Amino acid sequence: MSISVNSSDRVCENGIQPVELLPATNDVHGGVIVDMKDAMEAQHFLTLLRASISQWRREGKKGVWIKLPIELVNLVETTVKEGFRYHHAEPHYLMLVYWIPETTNTLPANASHRVGIGAIVVNDKKEMLVVQEKSGRFQGTGVWKIPTGVVDEGEDIFKAAVREVKEETGIDAEFLEVLAFRQSHKTFFEKSDLFFVCMLHPLTFDIEKQELEIEAAKWMPLEEYAAQPVTQTHALFKYILELGSLKLDRDYAGFSPLHITSVFDDKLSFLYLNRQQMQCLSSPDQSS
Amino acid sequence: MSISVNSSDRVCENGIQPVELLPATNDVHGGVIVDMKDAMEAQHFLTLLRASISQWRREGKKGVWIKLPIELVNLVETTVKEGFRYHHAEPHYLMLVYWIPETTNTLPANASHRVGIGAIVVNDKKEMLVVQEKSGRFQGTGVWKIPTGVVDEGEDIFKAAVREVKEETGIDAEFLEVLAFRQSHKTFFEKSDLFFVCMLHPLTFDIEKQELEIEAAKWMPLEEYAAQPVTQTHALFKYILELGSLKLDRDYAGFSPLHITSVFDDKLSFLYLNRQQMQCLSSPDQSS
Repeated sequence: MSISVNSSDRVCENGIQPVELLPATNDVHGGVIVDMKDAMEAQHFLTLLRASISQWRREGKKGVWIKLPIELVNLVETTVKEGFRYHHAEPHYLMLVYWIPETTNTLPANASHRVGIGAIVVNDKKEMLVVQEKSGRFQGTGVWKIPTGVVDEGEDIFKAAVREVKEETGIDAEFLEVLAFRQSHKTFFEKSDLFFVCMLHPLTFDIEKQELEIEAAKWMPLEEYAAQPVTQTHALFKYILELGSLKLDRDYAGFSPLHITSVFDDKLSFLYLNRQQMQCLSSPDQSS
Repeated sequence: MSISVNSSDRVCENGIQPVELLPATNDVHGGVIVDMKDAMEAQHFLTLLRASISQWRREGKKGVWIKLPIELVNLVETTVKEGFRYHHAEPHYLMLVYWIPETTNTLPANASHRVGIGAIVVNDKKEMLVVQEKSGRFQGTGVWKIPTGVVDEGEDIFKAAVREVKEETGIDAEFLEVLAFRQSHKTFFEKSDLFFVCMLHPLTFDIEKQELEIEAAKWMPLEEYAAQPVTQTHALFKYILELGSLKLDRDYAGFSPLHITSVFDDKLSFLYLNRQQMQCLSSPDQSS
């Protein structure tokens, strides 16, 4: 997303001493990105920051992004006191941002959702793969639930479903469809959750449960899952059973992933849709 | 998510001077949350922080969360130097976290996705509601696209679709279905995107375009949208046309939202599924 243009080596003009600036790259939206890597005294940083902002203002730059690795935490206070605001943080860095123009700030929003998956895996005996967790809401309750997990950063939903089933139970499975998804809010501080209910077809059947998170794992007859009190009272448990049963009877069409690419950057992504009714669009890998 | 238990008013026992601690609430996962609100000198904060961590360690606490409003940026460096790591940030605060036990850190992941919507709105003349944007990738290209936008924090996908259509074009519309969704990665630094293609039914027809972001808006015959070069080359444009057309012909079943509640906290959320094939589950508001 950035174009490498190092502005720290400014040419001296008219005999005026060149001013040292922070190393920055331009982004495609008229802004600049400063990716600080080396340790620096706060006072020296402040001098460079002020000179840089002046220069970028003259150049008509818009958003100024400063990425500070956690090792450079000594520069955070200085940056904020110069008018920067936090944008987002990951364990190892903090991203701050400043909007130069007088016009309305059009800075993009921060990530707002965490994404999880639940995997319905049913064998030929109409037994569902279920687990008991060592922590979380169902810990110690005796409740059997489908394998669930968080989609890793940069991971595709269908791959996360296959990975979580393998990790928690040792079962290899093939992804079939997203049967439903749930959006819920304020699940973690102010953030929201998208939870994708996925149908998978098992390829192996011998369970090897994970020790860290899983108390027990087994193949459970659908009737037994249905008879659990939690299935009667908890909508998601009930829908998981209903959707899985409908899918097994082939009466339910969920969404399955289709590989597409973007004309802009050749990046691959997946479009999830009802493919039963998209047969007319035959090619599985459409350029875009 | 937190239980209010202020640990700063510790009772003096055995004649020992009570130690002042940071005000904290317990969370349901065996950790504590410190929500700093008042200004404090870094040195005083450090004293309280060290005493608090010692106390929490004795109590067997796990994760320690410290939320620092941006006004308390003077405490960030101290917190990091005591071993805390960034967890996430919003413009007005920074969340830091520390894992006390020797065991594996089971802290929840940060939000990883931004969520967007695109709205297909077609009138009775088989004309689609399209816009030209003042900024972004299609700025100045003459490309007509469906209204799109970002789902606000805490906003439901179907409400975001209705809102964006109203904001950009002045058209009131009723949400019908999610026809497809796309997951793409590294769209903004390391974050991913989920983009939901939504079908809406227009309730009004007189366009009043928004000035800030929209260059032009109109009802465009589907054939004209199909004839745009971008529709030939860009998979998402093509699928939007195909999916919208299939939906108009009633041959395509997408996902529509069903209101459900959680037994745990009575919170409402929406489950999006293929309702055409879920008629057997009749009640629209299922307790869970």
